[in-house]
Amino acid sequence: MGVLHEECGVFGICSPERAQLADLTYYALSALQHRGQESAGIALNDDGIITTIRDVGLVSEVFTTDRLKSLGEGNIAVGHVRYSTTGSDSRRNAQPLRINHYKGQLALAHNGNLTNAHILRHELESMGSIFHSTTDTEVIAYIIVQERLRARSIEDAVARAMDRLEGAYSLVLSSPSKLIAARDPHGFRPLCMGAMPNGATVFASESCALDAIGAEFIRDLLPGEIITVGNHGMDVDRSHCGQFPQTLCAFEYIYFARPDSVIDGCSVHTARQRAGRILARVHPAAADVVIGVPDSGLDAAIGYAAESGLPYGIGFVKNKYIGRTFIAPDGRLDKVKIKLSAVESEVKGKSVVLIDDSIVRGTTCARIVNLLRQAGAKEVHMRVSAPPFLNPCYYGTDIDSRENLIACKYSFTEITQLINADSLGYLPLESLPELTGSNEFCSACFDGNYPTEIPTDTRKDRFEQQLSKKKAEDKTTAG
Amino acid sequence: MGVLHEECGVFGICSPERAQLADLTYYALSALQHRGQESAGIALNDDGIITTIRDVGLVSEVFTTDRLKSLGEGNIAVGHVRYSTTGSDSRRNAQPLRINHYKGQLALAHNGNLTNAHILRHELESMGSIFHSTTDTEVIAYIIVQERLRARSIEDAVARAMDRLEGAYSLVLSSPSKLIAARDPHGFRPLCMGAMPNGATVFASESCALDAIGAEFIRDLLPGEIITVGNHGMDVDRSHCGQFPQTLCAFEYIYFARPDSVIDGCSVHTARQRAGRILARVHPAAADVVIGVPDSGLDAAIGYAAESGLPYGIGFVKNKYIGRTFIAPDGRLDKVKIKLSAVESEVKGKSVVLIDDSIVRGTTCARIVNLLRQAGAKEVHMRVSAPPFLNPCYYGTDIDSRENLIACKYSFTEITQLINADSLGYLPLESLPELTGSNEFCSACFDGNYPTEIPTDTRKDRFEQQLSKKKAEDKTTAG
Amino acid sequence: MGVLHEECGVFGICSPERAQLADLTYYALSALQHRGQESAGIALNDDGIITTIRDVGLVSEVFTTDRLKSLGEGNIAVGHVRYSTTGSDSRRNAQPLRINHYKGQLALAHNGNLTNAHILRHELESMGSIFHSTTDTEVIAYIIVQERLRARSIEDAVARAMDRLEGAYSLVLSSPSKLIAARDPHGFRPLCMGAMPNGATVFASESCALDAIGAEFIRDLLPGEIITVGNHGMDVDRSHCGQFPQTLCAFEYIYFARPDSVIDGCSVHTARQRAGRILARVHPAAADVVIGVPDSGLDAAIGYAAESGLPYGIGFVKNKYIGRTFIAPDGRLDKVKIKLSAVESEVKGKSVVLIDDSIVRGTTCARIVNLLRQAGAKEVHMRVSAPPFLNPCYYGTDIDSRENLIACKYSFTEITQLINADSLGYLPLESLPELTGSNEFCSACFDGNYPTEIPTDTRKDRFEQQLSKKKAEDKTTAG
Amino acid sequence: MGVLHEECGVFGICSPERAQLADLTYYALSALQHRGQESAGIALNDDGIITTIRDVGLVSEVFTTDRLKSLGEGNIAVGHVRYSTTGSDSRRNAQPLRINHYKGQLALAHNGNLTNAHILRHELESMGSIFHSTTDTEVIAYIIVQERLRARSIEDAVARAMDRLEGAYSLVLSSPSKLIAARDPHGFRPLCMGAMPNGATVFASESCALDAIGAEFIRDLLPGEIITVGNHGMDVDRSHCGQFPQTLCAFEYIYFARPDSVIDGCSVHTARQRAGRILARVHPAAADVVIGVPDSGLDAAIGYAAESGLPYGIGFVKNKYIGRTFIAPDGRLDKVKIKLSAVESEVKGKSVVLIDDSIVRGTTCARIVNLLRQAGAKEVHMRVSAPPFLNPCYYGTDIDSRENLIACKYSFTEITQLINADSLGYLPLESLPELTGSNEFCSACFDGNYPTEIPTDTRKDRFEQQLSKKKAEDKTTAG
Repeated sequence: MGVLHEECGVFGICSPERAQLADLTYYALSALQHRGQESAGIALNDDGIITTIRDVGLVSEVFTTDRLKSLGEGNIAVGHVRYSTTGSDSRRNAQPLRINHYKGQLALAHNGNLTNAHILRHELESMGSIFHSTTDTEVIAYIIVQERLRARSIEDAVARAMDRLEGAYSLVLSSPSKLIAARDPHGFRPLCMGAMPNGATVFASESCALDAIGAEFIRDLLPGEIITVGNHGMDVDRSHCGQFPQTLCAFEYIYFARPDSVIDGCSVHTARQRAGRILARVHPAAADVVIGVPDSGLDAAIGYAAESGLPYGIGFVKNKYIGRTFIAPDGRLDKVKIKLSAVESEVKGKSVVLIDDSIVRGTTCARIVNLLRQAGAKEVHMRVSAPPFLNPCYYGTDIDSRENLIACKYSFTEITQLINADSLGYLPLESLPELTGSNEFCSACFDGNYPTEIPTDTRKDRFEQQLSKKKAEDKTTAG
Repeated sequence: MGVLHEECGVFGICSPERAQLADLTYYALSALQHRGQESAGIALNDDGIITTIRDVGLVSEVFTTDRLKSLGEGNIAVGHVRYSTTGSDSRRNAQPLRINHYKGQLALAHNGNLTNAHILRHELESMGSIFHSTTDTEVIAYIIVQERLRARSIEDAVARAMDRLEGAYSLVLSSPSKLIAARDPHGFRPLCMGAMPNGATVFASESCALDAIGAEFIRDLLPGEIITVGNHGMDVDRSHCGQFPQTLCAFEYIYFARPDSVIDGCSVHTARQRAGRILARVHPAAADVVIGVPDSGLDAAIGYAAESGLPYGIGFVKNKYIGRTFIAPDGRLDKVKIKLSAVESEVKGKSVVLIDDSIVRGTTCARIVNLLRQAGAKEVHMRVSAPPFLNPCYYGTDIDSRENLIACKYSFTEITQLINADSLGYLPLESLPELTGSNEFCSACFDGNYPTEIPTDTRKDRFEQQLSKKKAEDKTTAG
Repeated sequence: MGVLHEECGVFGICSPERAQLADLTYYALSALQHRGQESAGIALNDDGIITTIRDVGLVSEVFTTDRLKSLGEGNIAVGHVRYSTTGSDSRRNAQPLRINHYKGQLALAHNGNLTNAHILRHELESMGSIFHSTTDTEVIAYIIVQERLRARSIEDAVARAMDRLEGAYSLVLSSPSKLIAARDPHGFRPLCMGAMPNGATVFASESCALDAIGAEFIRDLLPGEIITVGNHGMDVDRSHCGQFPQTLCAFEYIYFARPDSVIDGCSVHTARQRAGRILARVHPAAADVVIGVPDSGLDAAIGYAAESGLPYGIGFVKNKYIGRTFIAPDGRLDKVKIKLSAVESEVKGKSVVLIDDSIVRGTTCARIVNLLRQAGAKEVHMRVSAPPFLNPCYYGTDIDSRENLIACKYSFTEITQLINADSLGYLPLESLPELTGSNEFCSACFDGNYPTEIPTDTRKDRFEQQLSKKKAEDKTTAG
Repeated sequence: MGVLHEECGVFGICSPERAQLADLTYYALSALQHRGQESAGIALNDDGIITTIRDVGLVSEVFTTDRLKSLGEGNIAVGHVRYSTTGSDSRRNAQPLRINHYKGQLALAHNGNLTNAHILRHELESMGSIFHSTTDTEVIAYIIVQERLRARSIEDAVARAMDRLEGAYSLVLSSPSKLIAARDPHGFRPLCMGAMPNGATVFASESCALDAIGAEFIRDLLPGEIITVGNHGMDVDRSHCGQFPQTLCAFEYIYFARPDSVIDGCSVHTARQRAGRILARVHPAAADVVIGVPDSGLDAAIGYAAESGLPYGIGFVKNKYIGRTFIAPDGRLDKVKIKLSAVESEVKGKSVVLIDDSIVRGTTCARIVNLLRQAGAKEVHMRVSAPPFLNPCYYGTDIDSRENLIACKYSFTEITQLINADSLGYLPLESLPELTGSNEFCSACFDGNYPTEIPTDTRKDRFEQQLSKKKAEDKTTAG
């Protein structure tokens, strides 16, 4: 029931067989759909001629049978799903971005957020560059194309570009004849590689996309690694590896990623179960049943139940037919009630441990607690499988502004009252490493410990301010 | 992961306040969407003038904000969702059916299947009646209107019609000034009544629709009961009650209904958990983890885990973005794999008890077992929370024909091998009463014990045969 | 520039070859599109199984390549276009109407308006009939099906039905194995027959539809004639012929029909040219140029120019891209100016004879005169190729109500001033026979001389009144 | 009945009032729709923030009421319609092009074709520029933005850019606070200026757009002129005027422009009538009637009739409902017959002079002659109101390649036979100046006399060749 906006998802495939690449990308993107529901796109490279279809909507909305077929055949494909925002210009910001330059066409898909995008953009504009979108992706494309002028090869241009890009980025790009994947030196966002039975190489934000299309998982890209595949074989460039300690976004495990994915060696499902187990040890409760908020609280609830010995119950039914076009109820009806329904026979007269992945503003949480009380729950003990949110994210997670974050505004006791819980327990910040057995996390949203320089607001120029004043449709920090 | 087609869902509301009836019906139908995804419709009665919007698609697809608003205001509304089939004429069969007759307009929504529809239809046609659709609903409308000629009131006409209708039907209909709900004397399909805080009366196929809109559950309609509400108050006609022992469709508990619904006094979730507990007692397994097939096997899996003491695990992630418009993969890709993904960290190296609600053809089941094996499961012990399907249903459930049902074609041992399981266990037929503590079930699909006369195929005329030969879009047995 | 709503158009084909019937109907309906732009439909009969597609929109909007193809093949097809109105229920009133009855399926397309529809409807409802739509077509279908019970054949049933139907109707209907065309005994609406090179028989509202598909025009149906074609050959039933003097709607020549059509032996283009010639003789003007309002005034303008010896000029350019979805300008912009533009070089400093087919409310006419004056016309002499409208039509023409008709409200002098013309001349009522060389016209809208009994308003019941109060979407007098 | 693809149309408005700019642009673009039916777009500038909506389709298809409203208000708007081609990428090439650069946002609309686009593009790409589209418009935008780095103002940047641009271009562009219109120094494409009653300044490709919105025509822009309007008032820059003799595209008068437009001082309708008069003098015919092919041959037919004294007749009815989505008939049906129908009563037994604006491949012309013969015409004397096409156009007219042009392949006698005419007469090349009383034409398509250097094919690189091999959706020479 998280209200955080999800990230983007990227995918790429380079195959020795020309057939079925658009189809495979379609199914892989469907498996990555949880990372972004605003727009979807596929770029198909047929011997240097890249055809792109991208539009606002789910993968299954953007691609009808006819449109998918119209992409034709080719040896390389790149796909992208983008998180949900609104506005008439969102079509323009859909990816993959296809550009033409003197060495041919290029298609680029990006997950993450640059921290120096404004500086780079200003530099480029001062030299006469024009921008069609407001995405970081177009900045990255420019930098790569500029470096291409000096570089020996497109992969060398990507490497040179990485010297100038700062922040979070997992990239998949198609040059006329190669597929290139690159992960930023901090490793903020996941990116993995797999192989198809026919020898095709695939890259994806999460391993679940490999499973969906029958690809074997090979390994995660190292932070800073660039892998290039083409007719010539595969090149691995690790010149940018080891610059920084890895700082994978902790929220990939806690909320973003799909439970069946394995990221940087650790199963997401396992990490969430462990979060539940930690909560059971640190914040036990004398209760009758453990219930997770679907879908993001379920894995942790299993862990809490296993560790505590309390029975696990199915306390909610989520209406699975509420999609993008569903009409939100007005004030007279309870929005949460329409999406989520408590199972009275499971909770009536019981003391319930309720597990969710996060509390952002607190309003949704309060309504969920209320659903349980209306269904007859005697007590509700709220357990949250993440530490409290206290800071904005500059690496591609759309965390609410501080003035909306309940943890920034209220004390622990006040929050417990506001959400109407009998008790409240967060995952301790110091337990984060236990989730995966590693401490290579970015946890800046919890502790303010940013692994990079962060943009200062004062740099924003008049034009940007106007744009945001106008509630501009384009988000500059997408990815 | 059931492959049975779901039934229809009906809803009706009669309110002292004119505002918001279309909205409330929209949200109630959304809560009943699991009962039918083919088409949706709302009829709004504004002082005798009934406006209807109905079309192919989910509730959220048929009704945009503008279309919902265009229904206007009124005191009575009737809604319907219909199960999924295909074909260009499905729009014509969408409900509620609105008709004009000499006493005014009538809107009718129906869940179920008449067993004497062909006879009634032939009778009506022989007297010069014309039919626009191939639904039972149009037959019911005709019979009611004909009886209206002789009846004192519309509710009396419904009562007279019930003398002629045979089979399964839960009806909600709006006359110019009244809302009428009626349930067939066998009580095959559920139908319940609720009340809104403002005094509005509502009827719905399942109680989950009442919860969604904040209505209080009052009670289920008795088999044979007719309830009429309007400005005059409420009339209850029980003249058709008690004719037969109740025979509620057992599959409502096992598969159709939403777990948070309570039908004829028993929670669906509880009934499913009990099925799991029975399976654990009757078909125990020396295993490491119990896993349900999402979403229909989850409740029984909880019950099996609780009874057996084995841990409950989340073994699958279901892709929730695969909707009506999703392009089915061709033969080279595994369809089940794209919808369902095994969580390797949960099953690797383990002996797994796998719970699903039914095995129809066996092909899907075999693929799911396979997913677990590919993810490293050591053993897979299949447990099915229903007895084997052996017979067709004439009461509104779209059970596959005998030549496709695996239980009709193969022995128990063969089935176990075909689905590649290490062991197999069905819910014993004699345990059905334990699910709800009552034995008032129709279990004809399991035991061939039909509570009514059933249609004989020889009655089908040339025209019908042609129609079915042409794989006609219209299904005559919808509802 | 007429503002009268157009009629419906009907088409039917019965072919010895199964292929291409849907295509031929599509092209024929496109040629009849001027008779109705609200909705379009095709019914394709494949050996008794009739598939129908019909929807709101132009023929080219309703039928995509896929939808047209999905009709499949067959030996008989029936098509319909319907005039433009608005409302969510117009889809329901789209034709052909397909019904099921005990002898099989029937598809019916109708152009015209019954004068006893309410009486028949009331009769049918009193006997228990239900109506889905508010069209006369459904009444006709019922009457035919009822008569079928007593008749030897479907064509006999049609003949019997004609004894009960009063008013205007040109029908094309498909029974399981025959195609039947029938024209009412007054011959209000046109209907003709043609033959394809492969021996197929076609029926159409106008001969232009025959030309479009390469069919040879055979002859018009006689008033009252019924023609039946099928495997058995062709049957002609003239038992209803000669009951009344023919009274073809005069407005078919003046406005409705396409100029290239020939109706009941007379070219529409010729009739309009003759109207222009008559105007030139009866209402001469000392002018420099003769200009027709596109497109309906052009033929008469040619005639006026030829008779008067004045040069014919192209005085207006009509914007041909303004279709159904064009957004009407608000009050600040001139609606007529956006659709029609005066050609300054043709009219500047000149005295202009302006020809249009009718003046209904006068507002559009005034604006057109104004366009000429703004473009520099010195004088504008308005000539109208029809007599003034004074009475409502009960035979299928949607003439504005008397309170809106300028000729009912103002004197000739006042009208001349209101439209800002220097002089005004109508076609004399007594000249109507000169248009075609026959006096077999219905000219009731001009002279109030109705050829049949007309419906009295007092018969309208409460239900109807409510409906019209609600500006009900369904028009009861369509067809 | 011309089969030449039409050009683009541009529009711009700068208003002292914020309201209604989107509406006015919508209606102006509708009046320019004949110049391009592929795509349409509007950019609305609200104090520097430019919102753009552009898509494939007619103006009335791209802009629904909601979408038009969503543009909001502002002081400057730019609009564009684009000619028709096909392909999934045409959406990307729709205009106005909106770009972001360091001085703010810019919206650009362009009609014409650069002859040095490839050279400029190559230059830009070599310096690291990236291109999203394949249009000349993006090249122009780049050049302007680059010059902006060195220029005092945006209008100065446009002037500097004009030193580098070669070929045909009529531009309208919005900077954050100004509206700028510019016409290439040869004046290949039209561009005029008007004023609204409220003081707003408007620019449009043709004067008919001014008429539609009630603007007064002020004057045509001079070749090479740049006009800038904004809060500061109006600036006129004529530094590029007088470089070359004016060479307006002759085909604007003969075919492209709307007859009610006045271009560079001459009425299009008058020019076409004069062409007809010249034909009557040079190629007289002993005939009974003069008939124009709708719509492009009608004006010339009037001229021919007037000069020759022969009567003008309406010989064809054009089906006005055949739009973008109409399904083209397959080989068995005559495509021309479905669009165009001969009026038999006008041509039967007569000797006909048939006037059209051009003969390109000859196939359509042959079919039209055939229609007349089938309708009974005794003789058909073809007269063409243009000289024969012999050369490709590099300035924005999509003339067929030489291998398709009938005049390049056959002798005059052969053409006469191929189109099945009794005689044939073209407009003499030397008569062109008589059309407008000026000889400032580009007539390269007739005489090969190109006013500028033309691109040599050898410059095309591998990438381009591949693109065209793949029948790439994007046309590089659009505008």
